[in-house]
Amino acid sequence: MSESIKVVVDAMGGDNAPEEIVKGAVEALAENENIEIIFTGPEDVVNAELGKYQYPASRVRVVHASQIIETGEPPVKAIQSKKDSSLVVGLNLVHKGEADAFVSSGSTGAVLVGGQAIVKKIRGVHRAPLAPLIPTAKGASLLIDCGASVDARPNHLVQFAVIGSIYMKNVMGISKPRVGLVNIGAEEEKGNALCKETYPLLKACPDINFIGNVEARDIPKGAADVYVTEAFVGNVILKMYEGVGGVLLQQIKAGLTSTLRSTIGAALAKPALKKTLKKFDSSNYGGAPLLGLKGLVVKTHGSAKAGEVKNTILQCIQFKEQDVNGKIQEFLARESAAKDSAG
Amino acid sequence: MSESIKVVVDAMGGDNAPEEIVKGAVEALAENENIEIIFTGPEDVVNAELGKYQYPASRVRVVHASQIIETGEPPVKAIQSKKDSSLVVGLNLVHKGEADAFVSSGSTGAVLVGGQAIVKKIRGVHRAPLAPLIPTAKGASLLIDCGASVDARPNHLVQFAVIGSIYMKNVMGISKPRVGLVNIGAEEEKGNALCKETYPLLKACPDINFIGNVEARDIPKGAADVYVTEAFVGNVILKMYEGVGGVLLQQIKAGLTSTLRSTIGAALAKPALKKTLKKFDSSNYGGAPLLGLKGLVVKTHGSAKAGEVKNTILQCIQFKEQDVNGKIQEFLARESAAKDSAG
Repeated sequence: MSESIKVVVDAMGGDNAPEEIVKGAVEALAENENIEIIFTGPEDVVNAELGKYQYPASRVRVVHASQIIETGEPPVKAIQSKKDSSLVVGLNLVHKGEADAFVSSGSTGAVLVGGQAIVKKIRGVHRAPLAPLIPTAKGASLLIDCGASVDARPNHLVQFAVIGSIYMKNVMGISKPRVGLVNIGAEEEKGNALCKETYPLLKACPDINFIGNVEARDIPKGAADVYVTEAFVGNVILKMYEGVGGVLLQQIKAGLTSTLRSTIGAALAKPALKKTLKKFDSSNYGGAPLLGLKGLVVKTHGSAKAGEVKNTILQCIQFKEQDVNGKIQEFLARESAAKDSAG
Repeated sequence: MSESIKVVVDAMGGDNAPEEIVKGAVEALAENENIEIIFTGPEDVVNAELGKYQYPASRVRVVHASQIIETGEPPVKAIQSKKDSSLVVGLNLVHKGEADAFVSSGSTGAVLVGGQAIVKKIRGVHRAPLAPLIPTAKGASLLIDCGASVDARPNHLVQFAVIGSIYMKNVMGISKPRVGLVNIGAEEEKGNALCKETYPLLKACPDINFIGNVEARDIPKGAADVYVTEAFVGNVILKMYEGVGGVLLQQIKAGLTSTLRSTIGAALAKPALKKTLKKFDSSNYGGAPLLGLKGLVVKTHGSAKAGEVKNTILQCIQFKEQDVNGKIQEFLARESAAKDSAG
């Protein structure tokens, strides 16, 4: 367990860069001595931030990158034209094997495109899924895919189910992750064409613990550990979490301060309430990994603060120690062999 | 305004039938004297419920139906085999022109299937959309479709946009309803194949006020008055509302009663909080209409209580007075003429 892990941190990505990003990375260094951090970004800016802290200099390196990819930029063009951005320079370090993982709070589109174009998919992976952990009443579940698989095919979803299970078992420590197919009814014959074709494939897949269809209303309850869906629906689920949660909390806040009586009540209830709601805060679980690549790429929220950056970096250790990519490759080899013998 | 409206009420549908259903209908009778109610269900059961209330007997009729369709039954089979169910008997009354509208808290599938099979679609309607009103920070918006259009085509979505706009204008009184296409990004070129093909058609449609793509996170904020989507995604949105809202409120409740201090605070804050959360309760807005049929069919929540049943019946008045179906037919005639001249 003493093997070290090298994590590239995009010092310039996200709303709170570089301050919170550098702070979170320094905190991760303090928490685990096997971590080495490589920051990408303008050398002077990163060093100025680092100057605020005490940290083990032997485990920190800054690789200069003069450009920044902004959130609004078209991803493909940004990746192609900004070769000296903190994002592209960072992904190249993983590609060249100089680092194990890359963490960024920058543009989701650019991380998705850059991850696939620069770090590249493992041979046999159809599409590299973006798989955030979402909070549930029981803890956290993996929602796979929220990324690049819009208009996915059934065999893509089967790969997501297996890859997601490997992740939840090895990184989150869940022994037999329950896999649910996101659908609009519980019965096998329910749903759209994609679900109807995917269901029997998941049922027949020996590599997963498939529990059947899961309706969206049961997702926040923690009905499964791995929720399998194509990216359009995954994205809608992820953003409904954000939207409903945000508006509801806003309304509750307004209700709590609408009268003097309720304002006093709210002041008394606040500490306990805050503690509970923290459980439902997705930043506790770290960033969303882009899986199936020849290296680990993790996207943290654009609004990520030091805590989320730290948690994300710490998760990378599990990913490497448990050899998640090795296990994905073993599955792909089995899948390919099965196809050959069937064909 | 003195024209009367005949509403068939399925006395036996839903978790709280027949008690809350009959109660809600009696309340609607008291609130508006132009309403006539026809209950379908076992005569003795319905009459026993009615016996609990004072009501204008001249505006109430009971049509006997000996069977009940349960929630778990396969819809098509149930509709075909249970000809004497409260649901089938009720829909037939609308089909034969003996009533204007049908309201049921029974099985959604059976209402969808029965509505299309018995009441039948208006000529020219591709698919009859189920369009619930969902609560937002600004009031309520129409989510169209949550019903039968799984794997819909772009021209289906255009019809939904127009039909939904007619409904929001005439029933909810919004003068130029903003139509948004549910998508995973704001830009025109974003999304899956369906969205990419639908966007330019909505943009070119003269019958609606199209405001572009809407991301799921902005749905609860009230970003549009009519959210257009195919039924799989619509269903996921509807159930995420329910799921996230439910789990969040449960967690908040647990947090509020976790310490003595917070329990006292919660007691003080409760009345104000309750008032606010009521705004976010979808039962305030009545049931979900199944639009585009030769008559109005409305599905109320399975858990509907008297208040929701009453609100739903009152909404039927607007639907008839404003001649929503006449306006849908005018649009279909224009659409068909445009197609002919183009062809």
